[in-house]
Amino acid sequence: MKYFIGIDIGGMSIKCGLVNQSGQILKWDSIVTIPQQDYTLTVKDICDLINKVVGDFGITLDDVSAVGMGIPGTVDAKRGVITYCNNINFRNTPIVEEMKKHLSLPVFIGNDANLAALGEVKFGSAKGEADVVFVTLGTGVGTGIIVDGKMIIGRNGAGAEGGHIVIKKGGLQCSCGQKGCWEAYASATALQKMAAKELEKHPESLIADLAKKEGKVSGKAVFDAAKMGDRLAKRLVKRYTENVSSGLVSLVNIFRPSCIIIGGGISNAGDGFFKPIQDYVSKNSYGRETCPRVEVRSAALKNDAGILGGVALAMDSLGL
Amino acid sequence: MKYFIGIDIGGMSIKCGLVNQSGQILKWDSIVTIPQQDYTLTVKDICDLINKVVGDFGITLDDVSAVGMGIPGTVDAKRGVITYCNNINFRNTPIVEEMKKHLSLPVFIGNDANLAALGEVKFGSAKGEADVVFVTLGTGVGTGIIVDGKMIIGRNGAGAEGGHIVIKKGGLQCSCGQKGCWEAYASATALQKMAAKELEKHPESLIADLAKKEGKVSGKAVFDAAKMGDRLAKRLVKRYTENVSSGLVSLVNIFRPSCIIIGGGISNAGDGFFKPIQDYVSKNSYGRETCPRVEVRSAALKNDAGILGGVALAMDSLGL
Repeated sequence: MKYFIGIDIGGMSIKCGLVNQSGQILKWDSIVTIPQQDYTLTVKDICDLINKVVGDFGITLDDVSAVGMGIPGTVDAKRGVITYCNNINFRNTPIVEEMKKHLSLPVFIGNDANLAALGEVKFGSAKGEADVVFVTLGTGVGTGIIVDGKMIIGRNGAGAEGGHIVIKKGGLQCSCGQKGCWEAYASATALQKMAAKELEKHPESLIADLAKKEGKVSGKAVFDAAKMGDRLAKRLVKRYTENVSSGLVSLVNIFRPSCIIIGGGISNAGDGFFKPIQDYVSKNSYGRETCPRVEVRSAALKNDAGILGGVALAMDSLGL
Repeated sequence: MKYFIGIDIGGMSIKCGLVNQSGQILKWDSIVTIPQQDYTLTVKDICDLINKVVGDFGITLDDVSAVGMGIPGTVDAKRGVITYCNNINFRNTPIVEEMKKHLSLPVFIGNDANLAALGEVKFGSAKGEADVVFVTLGTGVGTGIIVDGKMIIGRNGAGAEGGHIVIKKGGLQCSCGQKGCWEAYASATALQKMAAKELEKHPESLIADLAKKEGKVSGKAVFDAAKMGDRLAKRLVKRYTENVSSGLVSLVNIFRPSCIIIGGGISNAGDGFFKPIQDYVSKNSYGRETCPRVEVRSAALKNDAGILGGVALAMDSLGL
């Protein structure tokens, strides 16, 4: 039996999972991310974590084939270097080289959204499909694109930043410095901002009640209120799903995938979220009369996307 | 010496070139396109044209390695079928099979913008580069995208329609049915429309004089007038180059190529066109502080792009 280690580096925690070839997580654990500490210490912590998880399952590192790591930033996978990371103190960090000081295993790295896409193709909602667009809607908008079974990562791994395609020239300010990026309209954050702004004018909306209970205006509150028939919520859902769809149509027109997989908390909103998006994409994508429909689906791996994406990368890199 | 045939099928004419492995066109000829005739007749005409060109150069078909054809439409290259073509009567047309009734040579087909991109990589402005975005600005906006030396064509060849990425949600009506497509803002046609509309309000502009001489408001007139200091023309150039750049930034953020190649008549406008685009792309693309600059260049193959793109495809397909 071959085992793999998947590492999911996030701004809050670093998760480590021991996984078999079928994508089952057999054992996992996590540590708290310390964003400002020197990377050599972070690497040491990760290797200790790997050893703990492997030991807890009662095997040794000799039973592990490889390690795959997902990073929330730009990654030069060939050189094993994290070029840039917004949330953690990684700048041109030779993480693979540093890992090898502690571990005698093959270590592969990739951008987390790209790996999540690969994970969905290997183990999740797009299993066995070769042309897939994956989008995760959270604080930002991340994309992972698979063409003919391979990730599109851009030269030096600096591409696949689909969240920063422009959908409204001269529009809302994006955190990247540009105006009108898809991310500024389609992230969960964008929906929350839209809702908070409208609530000032419509304090009678059900969203306000739900937000009070939760302590914040969440995307979930908007979708829940819409389901209950709230007018403002329905309007926000329409606008937001159109924003999401608009960027998806652009990606469909470039890549014409067999399916689009949407992840992130909002993808739990169910039909109220997916149906309007499916309709918009089917109606607006280029060549809609002659091309097969592009299916829009929910991501399957959810919170395990990071770990299983890392494992998918490791398996792919070893030709498995 | 190996020879190749490149065929460029256009709405007005079908061009045929005999080309050597260095990309030199040794002999060429053309026939008028008859858009409405049955495809079997068109194929017969093309094969007669090939025979004529080969004969005119004093060789025989035995000296030719393969034929590559560029089609202004959607192509399923694997099956050798033209799925859809806007201007010519091709609908699910098995053109390769039909060609083989007349010719015992390997025949390869591709979308013309994709092949132009391949041609620029093989023989033109992006020679030897592996990650290239090619854009042609004409009646519409065509794109050809090369990742790691290979064309991105989308599943069933129905992708790479980069002209139909949305840059202004809810904006100008595009011929594809969607609103706000890049094509509706960045095609040569879009510039002409913009100029014609503004001229109604500013009949004193130099553009009007130049247009009178030419008999129409062309993109060239706008760029020429801007060079002469005309205020309206300068404003139009600013707006238009921003429109072009906006879509380019989206493509850069997805693909992070080493260069962008721009073709089409407008690419002859020189620095007044390229400099603002280079500046905008450098200033607005994601990760601009850490990533190497993406160079914006003019296409080199110009009117030969179709023939040489076909030859590039044929050579690539044979592994040459």
